[in-house]
Amino acid sequence: MGSHYAALEAHFKRLGDVEGASAILGWDTAVMMPRGSAAVRGEQLATLKGISHEMLIADTVAEGLDAALAETDLDPWRRANLREMRRRHRSARAVDPALVEALTRACTACETVWREARAASDFAMLRGHLEEVVALTRATAVQTGAALGLEPYDALLEANQPDLRDAAIEPLFGRLGAELPTILDLAITRQAQPLIAAGPFPIERQKLLAKRLMERMGFDFTAGRLDESTHPFCGGVPSDIRLTTRYRQDEIVSAMMGVLHETGHALYEAGLPRDWQGQPVGEARGIVVHESQSLLVEMQASRSPSFLAWLAGELRAEFGDDPALTAANLKRTYHRVARSLIRVDADEVTYPLHIVLRHRLERHLIAGDLAVADLPGAWNDGMRELLGVVSPDDARGCLQDIHWPVGAFGYFPCYTLGAVLAAQLFAAARASLPDLEGDLATGDFAPLLGWLRAAVHGRGSLLGYGELVEAACGAPLTVEPFLAHLRARYLG
Amino acid sequence: MGSHYAALEAHFKRLGDVEGASAILGWDTAVMMPRGSAAVRGEQLATLKGISHEMLIADTVAEGLDAALAETDLDPWRRANLREMRRRHRSARAVDPALVEALTRACTACETVWREARAASDFAMLRGHLEEVVALTRATAVQTGAALGLEPYDALLEANQPDLRDAAIEPLFGRLGAELPTILDLAITRQAQPLIAAGPFPIERQKLLAKRLMERMGFDFTAGRLDESTHPFCGGVPSDIRLTTRYRQDEIVSAMMGVLHETGHALYEAGLPRDWQGQPVGEARGIVVHESQSLLVEMQASRSPSFLAWLAGELRAEFGDDPALTAANLKRTYHRVARSLIRVDADEVTYPLHIVLRHRLERHLIAGDLAVADLPGAWNDGMRELLGVVSPDDARGCLQDIHWPVGAFGYFPCYTLGAVLAAQLFAAARASLPDLEGDLATGDFAPLLGWLRAAVHGRGSLLGYGELVEAACGAPLTVEPFLAHLRARYLG
Repeated sequence: MGSHYAALEAHFKRLGDVEGASAILGWDTAVMMPRGSAAVRGEQLATLKGISHEMLIADTVAEGLDAALAETDLDPWRRANLREMRRRHRSARAVDPALVEALTRACTACETVWREARAASDFAMLRGHLEEVVALTRATAVQTGAALGLEPYDALLEANQPDLRDAAIEPLFGRLGAELPTILDLAITRQAQPLIAAGPFPIERQKLLAKRLMERMGFDFTAGRLDESTHPFCGGVPSDIRLTTRYRQDEIVSAMMGVLHETGHALYEAGLPRDWQGQPVGEARGIVVHESQSLLVEMQASRSPSFLAWLAGELRAEFGDDPALTAANLKRTYHRVARSLIRVDADEVTYPLHIVLRHRLERHLIAGDLAVADLPGAWNDGMRELLGVVSPDDARGCLQDIHWPVGAFGYFPCYTLGAVLAAQLFAAARASLPDLEGDLATGDFAPLLGWLRAAVHGRGSLLGYGELVEAACGAPLTVEPFLAHLRARYLG
Repeated sequence: MGSHYAALEAHFKRLGDVEGASAILGWDTAVMMPRGSAAVRGEQLATLKGISHEMLIADTVAEGLDAALAETDLDPWRRANLREMRRRHRSARAVDPALVEALTRACTACETVWREARAASDFAMLRGHLEEVVALTRATAVQTGAALGLEPYDALLEANQPDLRDAAIEPLFGRLGAELPTILDLAITRQAQPLIAAGPFPIERQKLLAKRLMERMGFDFTAGRLDESTHPFCGGVPSDIRLTTRYRQDEIVSAMMGVLHETGHALYEAGLPRDWQGQPVGEARGIVVHESQSLLVEMQASRSPSFLAWLAGELRAEFGDDPALTAANLKRTYHRVARSLIRVDADEVTYPLHIVLRHRLERHLIAGDLAVADLPGAWNDGMRELLGVVSPDDARGCLQDIHWPVGAFGYFPCYTLGAVLAAQLFAAARASLPDLEGDLATGDFAPLLGWLRAAVHGRGSLLGYGELVEAACGAPLTVEPFLAHLRARYLG
């Protein structure tokens, strides 16, 4: 191992420590912090972010990378680590710090106004702020793209999922936009109304069940926690994963599925290569791959009829013989589709249509082909075309998501690419694990988790995104397994 | 405000952010972190500590301090801030980094061995490790002392309580060593055996009562939390104070008093000048002053007969008419003295004698007059002389405390100086607040807290230690109010 490489590894280890500290503080902010400390915590997090940014763009990193690339005794992991160091370093250096600061400030202001505008369903309130965020995001995308040799929108995608290019999204989303409305039409005619579980479901017992399910799936509570927060998330660091959920006493089905979803993220983090923890090559391979892991666990495995039959037994053991907690009714509940207005409440058939719409609109916003002022109209046109429903107000229309007001462009497509990849990975897993259905029918996740660790988790960022998909699935990303999955589940 | 000063303030604000982040992570380590992440967390904290150390010793700080001191338009707070910046900067630069690292490594190893040695009551196990810690601490004290113009042991005191010198401790501790044994003898003959509360005391209800007491004392739960940890402490930052305690179902009296003690620390942190949060001048004035605040709340106010009568009512309201929870029995319980072997279990009469012994021994260890090998014998001789009891084993003798194995020399005296200062401050408060007894008899801490905020908390580090004592008490530190308090409470 060359000395330039070794120095870089030591530097990035320290950078990883600072980022890990920030991750735990981020969890604390959402879960533990008393509200009176928000301003001070904001300063602490901003300072740590500034420090890690300075460490990332340091001239010594640029010089070290050049020197280390000439060292010949590096194995593939170290070569890949250098590649990922270089990727992060170049992206961080690409944008003028004054522009970063202006964008951060604009997003903070826009987010505040967005909360009020959504509550009032008043797009005009938001418009000026969103115009500024779009303009500054575009400028950032142009600068980053110029430095990395990418089109502006691709530069935004790259920040969320390295190596993802819009040219690869177009054909996939085109197929989804064409196929899903038909599947949705048919699914709606075939489904039956589920019973609603009566409850109440005491929250302490929901917590115990949630932890039992997580353990059953392979979550290690000596290296992580489950707590509560308004918006469930999976945070922390691979050796200390901080998962959150929320409970309602009158409800059990969505809380449990929420836990299973976040556990999918957690298992990915926990399975990252331990020897490379804190190094860029030891990190998850991007948002698409992360989403694929939560959606594989939630949509592919946990909503499978085999697993739902097992889950019904667990729920009845904990909460008694509620007629809504039978295998058949859970299937009706968890396989129900609807022409919903709200993305976060959408089922797996309609969800991609929400994403196709947002992808289309954000590309045009960044390209400058769509003015912010025209967003509500374009939104409603798209909803009518893709989902056949239109919101009577902007609150449930183009004001519903936080992403654009906080400058998260190039993020939405990752959700659906993750769903597509989840289906393809699950098909590959099933091909390798002939008794996967039987395993899930007994609540046994171990074989599936073993397969995912070898195929995805344990590889960290050793491979590029496209290489990882091919190595794990045996083929490039394609929508066919996802469409086959939907047809089997909803039209079968 | 001069521009050199402004630049320093901005720099120390960032330093304060990093230290604040470390403080919250330190709390998380003790309260929330799953045990499997100890090694990773250790790295995160070490990296943050390294970063804040680098920020503190930066050449730009040295240059900025010289330039800022020449700026003439600074008010007393800013002048004091510069003085405290300079103090921290000089101390941090005083020691060779290689020595700091060697001491840190020796302490880590020694702490581990100490846990085993204490469990086995085997001083020989510890001896070599402790010799190394003592030698490296002495070297550190010599280097720091040379840089700051202090005797080695004074340099260790300075690190815990700025401006505290051994010459000031000697006469105070001499008086205590002479007077306390007599008070103890008499107190033992006069006390009555208390009843032990039967319990059980459900922990959820203890928690609610603890929070109610804290609120009553002025703790703001929008700017802090109460949680549980093995060793109770008060951590966090002034806007987000993280207090911990521990509960036992069969016990109520020590848990409640533990909460009141830590609340004394918390109220100090919460009352520090908000405008200077994150700056050196906005910090607490040192360990002696911090201890004075917890001991004033616990020993002076909360164990006063007036308050205990009120507390008895609260306890009976929560846990029923247990005959042990009467005002008279609480008084017998909380005013009980004993010739104990263990410092942390000691009452307020014997506690200073434990400290007088440790102070004597650690001065000799640092001076090189006492060999580590001779510590057990010297310990037992001192216990016999001061307390009249000798432990049958070293586990309850010189192995009982963690302080020396982790290199905390110059810390022990602060506990008793804090108790002495607490008595003097309480006497001054009583002189200013004629109805203080009446307030405490109704559980009303507001007048006392108001006095403490003006006299101590709100001053942060504006004044030096000695100046603060004089400004708050109207006289330099003296043991007379403490002795008068003990005589009144135990011999009255």
